[in-house]
Amino acid sequence: MNFTKVKDIGDVRQAVKEALELKKNRFQYHEAGKNKTALLIFFNNSLRTRLSTQKAATNLGMNVIVLDVNQGAWRLETEREVVMDGDKSEHLLEAIPVMGCYCDIIGVRSFARFENKEDDYSEKILQQFIRYSGRPVFSMEAATRHPLQSFADLITIEEYKRTERPKIVLTWTPHPRALPQAVPNSFAEWINAAGYELVITHPEGYELDPQFVGTARVEHNQRKAFEGADFIYAKNWAAYKDPHYGEVLSTDRSWTVDTEKMALTNQAFFMHCLPVRRNLIVTDEVIESPQSLVIPQAANREISAQTVLKRMLDGLQSTA
Amino acid sequence: MNFTKVKDIGDVRQAVKEALELKKNRFQYHEAGKNKTALLIFFNNSLRTRLSTQKAATNLGMNVIVLDVNQGAWRLETEREVVMDGDKSEHLLEAIPVMGCYCDIIGVRSFARFENKEDDYSEKILQQFIRYSGRPVFSMEAATRHPLQSFADLITIEEYKRTERPKIVLTWTPHPRALPQAVPNSFAEWINAAGYELVITHPEGYELDPQFVGTARVEHNQRKAFEGADFIYAKNWAAYKDPHYGEVLSTDRSWTVDTEKMALTNQAFFMHCLPVRRNLIVTDEVIESPQSLVIPQAANREISAQTVLKRMLDGLQSTA
Amino acid sequence: MNFTKVKDIGDVRQAVKEALELKKNRFQYHEAGKNKTALLIFFNNSLRTRLSTQKAATNLGMNVIVLDVNQGAWRLETEREVVMDGDKSEHLLEAIPVMGCYCDIIGVRSFARFENKEDDYSEKILQQFIRYSGRPVFSMEAATRHPLQSFADLITIEEYKRTERPKIVLTWTPHPRALPQAVPNSFAEWINAAGYELVITHPEGYELDPQFVGTARVEHNQRKAFEGADFIYAKNWAAYKDPHYGEVLSTDRSWTVDTEKMALTNQAFFMHCLPVRRNLIVTDEVIESPQSLVIPQAANREISAQTVLKRMLDGLQSTA
Repeated sequence: MNFTKVKDIGDVRQAVKEALELKKNRFQYHEAGKNKTALLIFFNNSLRTRLSTQKAATNLGMNVIVLDVNQGAWRLETEREVVMDGDKSEHLLEAIPVMGCYCDIIGVRSFARFENKEDDYSEKILQQFIRYSGRPVFSMEAATRHPLQSFADLITIEEYKRTERPKIVLTWTPHPRALPQAVPNSFAEWINAAGYELVITHPEGYELDPQFVGTARVEHNQRKAFEGADFIYAKNWAAYKDPHYGEVLSTDRSWTVDTEKMALTNQAFFMHCLPVRRNLIVTDEVIESPQSLVIPQAANREISAQTVLKRMLDGLQSTA
Repeated sequence: MNFTKVKDIGDVRQAVKEALELKKNRFQYHEAGKNKTALLIFFNNSLRTRLSTQKAATNLGMNVIVLDVNQGAWRLETEREVVMDGDKSEHLLEAIPVMGCYCDIIGVRSFARFENKEDDYSEKILQQFIRYSGRPVFSMEAATRHPLQSFADLITIEEYKRTERPKIVLTWTPHPRALPQAVPNSFAEWINAAGYELVITHPEGYELDPQFVGTARVEHNQRKAFEGADFIYAKNWAAYKDPHYGEVLSTDRSWTVDTEKMALTNQAFFMHCLPVRRNLIVTDEVIESPQSLVIPQAANREISAQTVLKRMLDGLQSTA
Repeated sequence: MNFTKVKDIGDVRQAVKEALELKKNRFQYHEAGKNKTALLIFFNNSLRTRLSTQKAATNLGMNVIVLDVNQGAWRLETEREVVMDGDKSEHLLEAIPVMGCYCDIIGVRSFARFENKEDDYSEKILQQFIRYSGRPVFSMEAATRHPLQSFADLITIEEYKRTERPKIVLTWTPHPRALPQAVPNSFAEWINAAGYELVITHPEGYELDPQFVGTARVEHNQRKAFEGADFIYAKNWAAYKDPHYGEVLSTDRSWTVDTEKMALTNQAFFMHCLPVRRNLIVTDEVIESPQSLVIPQAANREISAQTVLKRMLDGLQSTA
């Protein structure tokens, strides 16, 4: 079993139920990971993901080895028939199977680079690990999806929702730098899979890849989108559409989430995956309000990772 | 329970007794830390502190996660109402509670920066972790104190002292760079708490903060201070007094501890917290002599850390 | 017991037998390392060595602490009587015993620097750890030998050999940078100790230190060397002989291992310690062929490390 997208978890409602059960006693499967090693490979920096995944794995009794790969320093050759007399000292066809030798499960973090849309959206690096490592692989945020985050978001929504089928609004917000679409893509994918009402609001030009938008409604008027919302999920992302892939098209601060806009909602909870730039994504007032779920979301990263790792460990057993 | 200063340990004699008991079999509480995670956050480099604290935590059966924070790279916004469109991508009000989510106990290492005396002496960073992390916090050397070092020093003195109330001399020694006052402040605080005779000797201008000097006697004549001493504790520090806070006022090598000065003492033991610059702080002869306790001191860092962590784990139990 | 060279393992045939026994169930000695800590010190970067050694130690139930030492940043003074007022802030006579305080076994990785042949070939750094740490030390590749690699190579040969005494060819291959002789030195030493037929082939000027060549036959004609070989072990190394120590004398691609040359052998297996530069050391065809053992070799690094650590743990018991 690999875990890179919502489909890999099967029935999301069932998965959330499993997660909440696990949360009641996170040490109940402490024997499940005995003598199993998780190798966590970071091509990009990480705070929440590293800490929460490491904690989740140790809750299950696994050994954890963290490998920080400086993208500049560790350049792998990926093509065949190249005479490797330049700066690349290893070929992925050796490096990846070798990493697989020393572990039972591999986690990979590798962001979109915005250098080549095709490379990013084909998940080139993640797929190489799936193909060549010989081990089950899970995503700790890849170029197009961040499934452990979205799973944690869904667990949080389940804990706080006041109606069976809440209205959830994913809103673009301004940011000075070009950020990947992994979080909004993935969030849309998971909320759609859960069957909740999803509205996506963003300035023109910020349309996401339709495969992720799915059945969600797109609304360019942010205030209109917020009306009656139960959850507001704020996030910046760079443009997806050609010819502006990876570009910052707007830093319009009228899109910042503030108290006045939150008043349009159905006393909505505020969500963000963190790190968050205050008074740009969201005002101090909103993020510090009792409606803010940013810390519970982060705390649920441990739970989503542990639920996924537990499933993967079960998968190892059944094939062993 | 937090641990940042001598008062946090209660009766120091009792604490030393506990430590020596633990040292007899450092694996006797291997179950105490089961399913507990210590997060060790380093804003400054560390060799002894990282290794000894990690060892101490694993002796207790804890999981350890080490987080190296490059002070330059991870700049946290600390003020409210700032539009975060610059180089700071996260606010401490999110970052610190999130770190607290994934662990049971937090260790923090954060030195004085000598940029702002008020920030240093109010222990700004350490206090933020205490206030916002939601977890018990212990100091792995902060701006003004290094309590795990001082506790290890006191354990070492207890092991080697030949009289009930030894005379201990803390002596300033020359060093080319500006070093924090954390070690001398803390040493004075702990020796005073233990009720031993303490003499502090340094060139004029190197007066320490009076709250740490306490009842110790200050003697500007180093030779006079050494007379009859049972322990010589050498350390450099930069000036504390305004307007010279954080400055090197002297590199006078006549303050180096050598065999001739040691001859003035009561066959004193030589102590230093390491790393030490030889033939500047102390001569080769003295540090290599049988009277040198620098390695036993370092070894006791594991014991002091373990005693403190054991207390903190007991505290978790009682509030759980 | 230290482990830095073939002699430290005693009878190599017996050691290989032990390793193969361990490989059948690598968790059978999970209690052997209980409450024991391995400190792994890396003066040079590592992928395979770090992962495999860490895995081996955890298989034995040990705690592992990894210490990455930036060779530039952590400059230790090594001489006595020096006034340390420059850029070196610690003396090895303090630093190394302190590291020994916090662990039971020390692993050291420290490559040849090619600055001083005498320093390299006397294993200056490794010997300092052996002399001053107070702990058993094992090499994770030192200046002149890489014994865990050679042991893994020998295990692999044992698993694949088709005759009692195979013919093994160690061949120099081109590379753009100056590489240490540790791998070829060590390989020759272990193959000689195993009593197999060893032929070493390289361009003139690339003669290895005679103490490692031992009873092996040197053949400057690569094709002639390959005739009838059962195993081809490819590796680049820089010149050993004065006055060209550490220099690249040739990058002649006619030495690359290709299909045509492999056809001269007795259907030989291809071996390399990795990382390997394709189409320089070896062609894509050969390294991807069923005769290529590069991944099994890497996988056996876990086994060789675990066999050595098991022996070292047994040694601790017997002296405790």
